[in-house]
Amino acid sequence: MSLVSPEPTVSYARLDRTTLSLIELALAEDIGPFDLTSRLTVPQNAQGQAKVVARTELVVSGLEVLREVFRQVDPAVKIRFLAQDGETIAPKKAVVEIAGPAQSLLTGERVALNFLSHLSGIATLTRRFILAMGEGPDRPRLLATRKTTPGLRALEKAAVVHGGGFSHRFGLFDGIMLKDNHIAAVGSLTEAVVKAKSGAPHGLKVEVEVDSAAQIEPALKAGADILLLDNFTPAELTAAVSLVAEYFAPQKRAVLLEASGGINLKNLKAIAETGVDFVSVGAITHSAPAADLGLDWS
Amino acid sequence: MSLVSPEPTVSYARLDRTTLSLIELALAEDIGPFDLTSRLTVPQNAQGQAKVVARTELVVSGLEVLREVFRQVDPAVKIRFLAQDGETIAPKKAVVEIAGPAQSLLTGERVALNFLSHLSGIATLTRRFILAMGEGPDRPRLLATRKTTPGLRALEKAAVVHGGGFSHRFGLFDGIMLKDNHIAAVGSLTEAVVKAKSGAPHGLKVEVEVDSAAQIEPALKAGADILLLDNFTPAELTAAVSLVAEYFAPQKRAVLLEASGGINLKNLKAIAETGVDFVSVGAITHSAPAADLGLDWS
Amino acid sequence: MSLVSPEPTVSYARLDRTTLSLIELALAEDIGPFDLTSRLTVPQNAQGQAKVVARTELVVSGLEVLREVFRQVDPAVKIRFLAQDGETIAPKKAVVEIAGPAQSLLTGERVALNFLSHLSGIATLTRRFILAMGEGPDRPRLLATRKTTPGLRALEKAAVVHGGGFSHRFGLFDGIMLKDNHIAAVGSLTEAVVKAKSGAPHGLKVEVEVDSAAQIEPALKAGADILLLDNFTPAELTAAVSLVAEYFAPQKRAVLLEASGGINLKNLKAIAETGVDFVSVGAITHSAPAADLGLDWS
Amino acid sequence: MSLVSPEPTVSYARLDRTTLSLIELALAEDIGPFDLTSRLTVPQNAQGQAKVVARTELVVSGLEVLREVFRQVDPAVKIRFLAQDGETIAPKKAVVEIAGPAQSLLTGERVALNFLSHLSGIATLTRRFILAMGEGPDRPRLLATRKTTPGLRALEKAAVVHGGGFSHRFGLFDGIMLKDNHIAAVGSLTEAVVKAKSGAPHGLKVEVEVDSAAQIEPALKAGADILLLDNFTPAELTAAVSLVAEYFAPQKRAVLLEASGGINLKNLKAIAETGVDFVSVGAITHSAPAADLGLDWS
Amino acid sequence: MSLVSPEPTVSYARLDRTTLSLIELALAEDIGPFDLTSRLTVPQNAQGQAKVVARTELVVSGLEVLREVFRQVDPAVKIRFLAQDGETIAPKKAVVEIAGPAQSLLTGERVALNFLSHLSGIATLTRRFILAMGEGPDRPRLLATRKTTPGLRALEKAAVVHGGGFSHRFGLFDGIMLKDNHIAAVGSLTEAVVKAKSGAPHGLKVEVEVDSAAQIEPALKAGADILLLDNFTPAELTAAVSLVAEYFAPQKRAVLLEASGGINLKNLKAIAETGVDFVSVGAITHSAPAADLGLDWS
Amino acid sequence: MSLVSPEPTVSYARLDRTTLSLIELALAEDIGPFDLTSRLTVPQNAQGQAKVVARTELVVSGLEVLREVFRQVDPAVKIRFLAQDGETIAPKKAVVEIAGPAQSLLTGERVALNFLSHLSGIATLTRRFILAMGEGPDRPRLLATRKTTPGLRALEKAAVVHGGGFSHRFGLFDGIMLKDNHIAAVGSLTEAVVKAKSGAPHGLKVEVEVDSAAQIEPALKAGADILLLDNFTPAELTAAVSLVAEYFAPQKRAVLLEASGGINLKNLKAIAETGVDFVSVGAITHSAPAADLGLDWS
Repeated sequence: MSLVSPEPTVSYARLDRTTLSLIELALAEDIGPFDLTSRLTVPQNAQGQAKVVARTELVVSGLEVLREVFRQVDPAVKIRFLAQDGETIAPKKAVVEIAGPAQSLLTGERVALNFLSHLSGIATLTRRFILAMGEGPDRPRLLATRKTTPGLRALEKAAVVHGGGFSHRFGLFDGIMLKDNHIAAVGSLTEAVVKAKSGAPHGLKVEVEVDSAAQIEPALKAGADILLLDNFTPAELTAAVSLVAEYFAPQKRAVLLEASGGINLKNLKAIAETGVDFVSVGAITHSAPAADLGLDWS
Repeated sequence: MSLVSPEPTVSYARLDRTTLSLIELALAEDIGPFDLTSRLTVPQNAQGQAKVVARTELVVSGLEVLREVFRQVDPAVKIRFLAQDGETIAPKKAVVEIAGPAQSLLTGERVALNFLSHLSGIATLTRRFILAMGEGPDRPRLLATRKTTPGLRALEKAAVVHGGGFSHRFGLFDGIMLKDNHIAAVGSLTEAVVKAKSGAPHGLKVEVEVDSAAQIEPALKAGADILLLDNFTPAELTAAVSLVAEYFAPQKRAVLLEASGGINLKNLKAIAETGVDFVSVGAITHSAPAADLGLDWS
Repeated sequence: MSLVSPEPTVSYARLDRTTLSLIELALAEDIGPFDLTSRLTVPQNAQGQAKVVARTELVVSGLEVLREVFRQVDPAVKIRFLAQDGETIAPKKAVVEIAGPAQSLLTGERVALNFLSHLSGIATLTRRFILAMGEGPDRPRLLATRKTTPGLRALEKAAVVHGGGFSHRFGLFDGIMLKDNHIAAVGSLTEAVVKAKSGAPHGLKVEVEVDSAAQIEPALKAGADILLLDNFTPAELTAAVSLVAEYFAPQKRAVLLEASGGINLKNLKAIAETGVDFVSVGAITHSAPAADLGLDWS
Repeated sequence: MSLVSPEPTVSYARLDRTTLSLIELALAEDIGPFDLTSRLTVPQNAQGQAKVVARTELVVSGLEVLREVFRQVDPAVKIRFLAQDGETIAPKKAVVEIAGPAQSLLTGERVALNFLSHLSGIATLTRRFILAMGEGPDRPRLLATRKTTPGLRALEKAAVVHGGGFSHRFGLFDGIMLKDNHIAAVGSLTEAVVKAKSGAPHGLKVEVEVDSAAQIEPALKAGADILLLDNFTPAELTAAVSLVAEYFAPQKRAVLLEASGGINLKNLKAIAETGVDFVSVGAITHSAPAADLGLDWS
Repeated sequence: MSLVSPEPTVSYARLDRTTLSLIELALAEDIGPFDLTSRLTVPQNAQGQAKVVARTELVVSGLEVLREVFRQVDPAVKIRFLAQDGETIAPKKAVVEIAGPAQSLLTGERVALNFLSHLSGIATLTRRFILAMGEGPDRPRLLATRKTTPGLRALEKAAVVHGGGFSHRFGLFDGIMLKDNHIAAVGSLTEAVVKAKSGAPHGLKVEVEVDSAAQIEPALKAGADILLLDNFTPAELTAAVSLVAEYFAPQKRAVLLEASGGINLKNLKAIAETGVDFVSVGAITHSAPAADLGLDWS
Repeated sequence: MSLVSPEPTVSYARLDRTTLSLIELALAEDIGPFDLTSRLTVPQNAQGQAKVVARTELVVSGLEVLREVFRQVDPAVKIRFLAQDGETIAPKKAVVEIAGPAQSLLTGERVALNFLSHLSGIATLTRRFILAMGEGPDRPRLLATRKTTPGLRALEKAAVVHGGGFSHRFGLFDGIMLKDNHIAAVGSLTEAVVKAKSGAPHGLKVEVEVDSAAQIEPALKAGADILLLDNFTPAELTAAVSLVAEYFAPQKRAVLLEASGGINLKNLKAIAETGVDFVSVGAITHSAPAADLGLDWS
């Protein structure tokens, strides 16, 4: 099965400040005061050339990070992209050409590859989930969650986009989501939704997690804009979609529906066919195996 | 198969500065200017209590990070550990009790769980590799590599220790390792080793990557202290171990041998029985699926 | 006219990381290597007591910042609040009592007062705008814009809340707003709205700036969720409210309406009576005179 | 009344480190992980051009900050100044031309304008105060105080210079000023001045706040170099100037005199004619309304 | 010869922000990810006790830094001072008692001693210079210069005070000093002094470096407040003091005189007797050998 | 006696992150908000040229730091090296040419010279120690210790290399060294060595401090790789070398021997002839007087 899929709709190429800080941390933790091996063995004026090569088929993500890693190591290193983020790469195909001071190539190699392999792993797994949904105009969007590696959220969300998915809210500040623990803390789903609706900035919708069919009508009555149907089976999801449609009939359904919880490559197709608008999957960010990429000296 | 294994020999409980910075970045990226949902719905003086619970069997790692996450969110949050790093946790067993301002518990929940799930995933996978080696006094040590998630190296190396493995060098500054690309840059394995030996700080041994049996004798002659046998099959490893023993006979073998490359849960036992001193496995840090832990309100 | 008004609905008491960094910068720029005058003249063990006193009627905001300023200067300084953020303070009334090492009180005084006077100035001016709208259940919400002092946004948005207003989106990341320059850059209002609607995270509404009545229908047709009616006179606003109501009739109006541009204490009442949902006013953050507060030694 | 005035004597064009950090904070608080609207709607390779235009007459200040804001957003943005700091700008006149990637122009616009409007507001109000003093060779210098917006002191002090004023000491580290609270903490004006004089670095004069005519002679006897006459009426200032002149007669007056407290555009001329050397006015930094500048797409 | 001398007049106990950052850097550079030796060998719960002991007679400085070093390493470490900064310590006398987790004592030991030995070395050498001047009411003040170790200025200036000396200006921002290179850049001593006098903040005096007797009168005429007599012999200094006295006669000399350049323990007494007000000596900060202090386990 | 010596074997030219931060701190502490003198007197567009000149014979170190200091002050400053690190410079010879905006040259001068003089002082003193050892193929290596100025370790270790010495471990993370206090904390030398050997990363040797001949055999039996012979006289060192040789006879001695403690220019030759492999000397980093370098305007 090929990993090819249509172009993502939004680009996230520019690196935000958290990512720049993270790259600094990552280089500092790897290099410390200096790269002992390279300094001891490689002449300071030696030049080198290398290619980053895919060892297996993968969807690439993180090219701008790789560029920034080498820029921080040594601005004299030249980078040429042979592919772009979101592109499917065949085994043994190169994605980047790197040239410059040999010491600098060796010093930056591991951190650059650690980023690229991690992010390409996420893009690749995302693509697999997308493909597993099957085709069709009403295919739900696949969403990344906040279950990301600490410090890497912007990069991992971008990798999901490169794989064909979409972001959910970015963090706690750009979306309102009432989860089970909020409802427990407030004491009542209805009260929680009403409070959120009345205080929410006017550009934000209110989403509420619903753990059973019985909670759907109270959530709708309280004014929720989006329902998160958590751990529903495909059959339960189908029923929930109908229930909500009826609530609004004969008007068009005025709330969005998101499925989450226990979604994997096996059950995804069934879930995708229930009529929900979104499926969100933590595993694409928190459990993607690294993609296999190496640096070949040339 | 139970995940239980003997205690790790070295503790890495204290958090280093990179980790403290990473926790700050992680909270900043998730919370931004404020946690909108909690502030809108949960009264500022409401108190809460919750438990972090394992959803499946796992080896826990990252408890001190969880404590620090909540300390940064709100020093008023109280943390009580019900287990310790490196301990095997049965499904549905709690590992931590948390109590304090309800808003603060909700605000810190996701970042704390993201760290704990990620690190426990690594400890758990490490334990599986250890168990796959089988028992025996001459079982090689399982080593973590530098293929770690950027910014999380100290934590991931500690998670490997919690799982029963060991660290290799930490970064480029505390060990000398000549890899294929160094040799390519220098032009000759012999020259690279000789340079490294003559310039190395006197407390550091020199390790050299060997890609074929033919490189072993030159490496020994040049004075390498450790050989990294990369991508050798079990049979090739056995032959290499003999070759090196003969080189030193009748003296005791004076170099250490490390196997790496393509090692997985299936071939590990065969490799462990070849007589090498160490096996290093990137997958335990770069491809461990997150362990499943949740926060249950009580 | 008294400044008293009803309680704000959302609290923003906790200081975010940007604010903590800003307080560090502010203390560093004022103190530099040391407070020369206090060190030269006040004995190191001398204790002092002082009160922060309002010189004129004002709405107070920034108490937690004042506490943090003194905490950073010297944790031995004790702070007792005599009022709370959002409270109207009569002239000569004290809002905080401060006690501790006399050197530390003198060293922190100016930075603490600079924050408190600036933020209370914003809260006070906001309250004046609120009062100028007059009473009534359909009074529009007064919104703060992004026209805030660099580095102080979280504090100034909170001050507006303390004065009785509300926040708009916080920044570029938590709301979608198409302004005149976006439309110029894209080339067409319709295209801009359609792109924004199709790519927006599902929890965010799309707001579009409309500079004339002629743009209203295209904006509605393109699917905008919120219209920003920029620089409309009260009469034009009234007409726009009707136009939009008719567009949706007999259904309820399904988009929100915000008035902005050239709104001041004189024309606010007329604007507030046009039926718009929100009025946003840059002046409450960018042009509020400092409130007059002083530190009286006791 | 035109705002034109003579050139300031000292330039402060280079940005200090606190300011660079503040610009980073300001961009981070506004952009967060990314500028959602621009990314969703404007093509990544679209170019744009715009002008920063004065909406009303103003004295411009902050051009270097604007340049740095866009440099941090995107080094590809080109900036051309059409005016210089301290220049009086007529309404509808442009002060800067900006060209580059359209996304970057839109992303940096608000932060850049927030700085420029704030600082130009201060320069403009300063100019008004200068003009209000009237002409004459013995016109006192108008001084900025430490009542500045936290984090913006260097910029606001420079804006005052651009408006025609001067700086006082920058902070607590580069000048010695005994205020009422120092005297209260020490217990006696005389003791405070004597201590300050004997311990002061030899390049610094000692200034002391005097709240009544009765304190003048003790201050002079104790050896003060500068008197701050706080909240004196014009008549009291005239009397104080005479008193001090007599104290030194027949020698030339050997201390400097500064008036402060309650100085505004109405009473400034009378104060300026009393013979004091300096008048210091907090309002020019803490209560200046923002100057009205906008970005017009072209 | 004993090192005892009178108490310094100003205390600099509180640590400024640069110093706190420097302590962080110093710990990070020494500890890196972890203190390998202590973790491998010392049980995590072992407690320890130790004393910091002078190996030779010295004047101690840096006690607060030592406290802060251990606070950053581990807040559980308890510190008790047995002496205070500026005190002369006899050989084998302890200055601090330290108790707490043994690992933490061992981890912080070297950085703490590096600070303390360096600063006590400066205080000790300063004391020697003070003693070399001999006694007398008109003994000039010994001044530290800006020739300090990068990042340690505040600490080194304080160490000089602990040794009995005084600070000059702290940096480029709190004093005006025209050196030979400024005069070369401006083109004329007179022009440089006139510009400085007319633009200087009113609380700052203007000091000018004078390299020969011929420059003295022009400097006085231009209005300099302080003359730095650079590389004058004692005889030339005596002549310069007379020359300046005559210039002002019959009035009291109205400028201060500072000697600098090539001053050492041998020629200091002669220089001190010439009548200058200050002697400044770079060597006390840039060339002081470390004082010998050790940590004895008990 | 000339300071000339053979080339150092390893180069440390690139600046690590701690050093970059230190340079920022050093500039911030010296410049603060601005360089008052230069701004007041030197026209903003004036250009200047200057040379850094040795006042006495010295071994230069720190050229890259000087370049970075001026780069941070003003990228328009041009630097041309006339010598390289490790080179012996005759008196009055220039080592660097600097050209650019005159204000920037004056602003950066002191910080640049403070670094260069400090580091060249260390390189120069190191060279003196090297020369004092005399010639010969079995001359031990001269090692720098961790007794370095806080924050400057990487630079000072490089300066030692420039002077002809070598680094020991860099910090607590890249070497294992059991000192007297570790042994006191553990309770027994044997236990400490055994623990360290069994837990050490496989690339690191274990060094142990030995304070008397009686500890040598236990240390060897426990498996130490390196012995630090602390405070041994030359005669005791000679005996220790023999003792260790006998222990291994007829095999070659398999541990390295390092002498330390009380080594100075007088006794170094005798120590160097005892047959130890290394001598380590704290004084070359903690007590080197600054080299005399100045900036001459041209």
